[in-house]
Amino acid sequence: MPIRNRLTTCLGIEHPVLLAPMDLVAGGRLAAAVSLAGGLGLLGGGYGEGGWIEREWQRAGNARIGCGFITWSLARNPALLDGVLARRPAAVMLSFGDPRPFAAAIRASGARLVCQVQTLAQAQEAAAAGADVIVAQGTEAGGHGQAVPLMALLPQVVRACPAIPVVAAGGIADGRGLAAAMMLGAEGVLMGTRFYASAEAEGHPEAKRRIVAAGAGETVRSVVFDLSRRITWPEPYTGRVLRNRHAERWLGREAELAAQAEHVAPAYAEARARGDFDIAAVIAGESAALIEDIAPAAEIVARVMAEAEAVLRAPRGLV
Amino acid sequence: MPIRNRLTTCLGIEHPVLLAPMDLVAGGRLAAAVSLAGGLGLLGGGYGEGGWIEREWQRAGNARIGCGFITWSLARNPALLDGVLARRPAAVMLSFGDPRPFAAAIRASGARLVCQVQTLAQAQEAAAAGADVIVAQGTEAGGHGQAVPLMALLPQVVRACPAIPVVAAGGIADGRGLAAAMMLGAEGVLMGTRFYASAEAEGHPEAKRRIVAAGAGETVRSVVFDLSRRITWPEPYTGRVLRNRHAERWLGREAELAAQAEHVAPAYAEARARGDFDIAAVIAGESAALIEDIAPAAEIVARVMAEAEAVLRAPRGLV
Repeated sequence: MPIRNRLTTCLGIEHPVLLAPMDLVAGGRLAAAVSLAGGLGLLGGGYGEGGWIEREWQRAGNARIGCGFITWSLARNPALLDGVLARRPAAVMLSFGDPRPFAAAIRASGARLVCQVQTLAQAQEAAAAGADVIVAQGTEAGGHGQAVPLMALLPQVVRACPAIPVVAAGGIADGRGLAAAMMLGAEGVLMGTRFYASAEAEGHPEAKRRIVAAGAGETVRSVVFDLSRRITWPEPYTGRVLRNRHAERWLGREAELAAQAEHVAPAYAEARARGDFDIAAVIAGESAALIEDIAPAAEIVARVMAEAEAVLRAPRGLV
Repeated sequence: MPIRNRLTTCLGIEHPVLLAPMDLVAGGRLAAAVSLAGGLGLLGGGYGEGGWIEREWQRAGNARIGCGFITWSLARNPALLDGVLARRPAAVMLSFGDPRPFAAAIRASGARLVCQVQTLAQAQEAAAAGADVIVAQGTEAGGHGQAVPLMALLPQVVRACPAIPVVAAGGIADGRGLAAAMMLGAEGVLMGTRFYASAEAEGHPEAKRRIVAAGAGETVRSVVFDLSRRITWPEPYTGRVLRNRHAERWLGREAELAAQAEHVAPAYAEARARGDFDIAAVIAGESAALIEDIAPAAEIVARVMAEAEAVLRAPRGLV
């Protein structure tokens, strides 16, 4: 129990490590594994298929977990939240949209309200909405996000919201990243890509393999994969994925892709179904370059904590 | 003297803080001030106007300074390097191009060879060229650079070059940034934007004022300002600047701007001359959002060191 702060107290966890609620990838097995290892597992509520959430919650067994939603999508089907709150989640995380319509119900249920933000203005809105925890997500993150890098965003969110514990997300996959985030004022980290490459993640084995193989700069943030699967996100959100043949083909030609989406989408969906990741996107962040194995989630949490503690206790060069 | 490591030993400095050699902004006064404060001042050799370097070197007085070059530009006028080496610089920094043609002469002169890189492959090239120090520059940085964020680039460069001290650049303006960089394996930082907003920088007062005023996400990396001033950089380099009216006008219309550059350039140059930064770009990085005053360089160095030491000695939450 090397780290104890407002975040661990607020969430009732042993280690300040949160699982990013990756749509369809962060299922019950993974969420339970992260929580049982001392962190907080968040189911990927994503676009909110009720049946998926229900099934995965059951697979999590008795583990104390939470759930994350894409807020603008949840707004179209708010009943999903009632279903989740009935299960007494430890926390509900809202990202990509206005948290205010849901904040009161989440907090009244006893769950902690975790708001993920990509800009300073959103952090201020989250604070005003009563967020218990704010996740500052840098552009390094996999999946949807915005353009501000973590090194610039995080210190500003910390400074603007002194009463709320801030969690760093984007580009973090190891204990050095946790330690660095703490130096910038964060009290914990939320990791997606690192847990994607875990034994318990629901992702395709080939997708996990590609995350391990990826090097620096091999991801790209764009709207190509959303256009290809015909999911329309509100501006200014874009999604970071591993660069592949399909991305190289369409980057810079987004308008053309949008015009042809009707024809592109079926082939894209089919490629996704058969695990062809030269076409379908592996949704992953810049931290893929730091990941060298597919490990059990509990081992990932233990490694992150051991490494963070080692570098925090004895910074090299400090005399 | 709270930090002592391979970097401070190699460069013979008291504090692991380097001044980015900002073209025309990092002049003799600023370089001398940073060196006299215990860091290492690097003149902005930039595109290499010999007269400017000579004049600024004299203005630095007896301070022990170095000089930075844009490598692809230096290759067009290699005699500039001879002029600098004759002055016995503490270090020569090469960025944006192949360091090999210049590495032997620099090291033979007794100067330290500092190579700035934006990718892992460049770091490996710099190591092979005999770099004494590698600067890993994240996309957060002001001015020219590439797309990889520091959180992703830095740990990989550190891992790939264990025998060489690595300096972090991009998005760093305070002691928390130095401490975070050290957690990621860096042994020091190179700061541009922070020192731009200093008393001694040669930049226009209005440019400094705009850096102080800038908030999160108010910079953009593009080729708009290079096209507007008709300086052709090799791909894939782009430049980060504060967003202004001119940038908003041309972002996404770069091909059109290139076609009209002949007409745009004179007005752009004129705006720059008269300090109209709604048109001319303020070349600054994401760390502008962290900067709240124009301070003397010595005070900046002292603050960075005091803050870094404080957070490194007592990480919040570590029990």
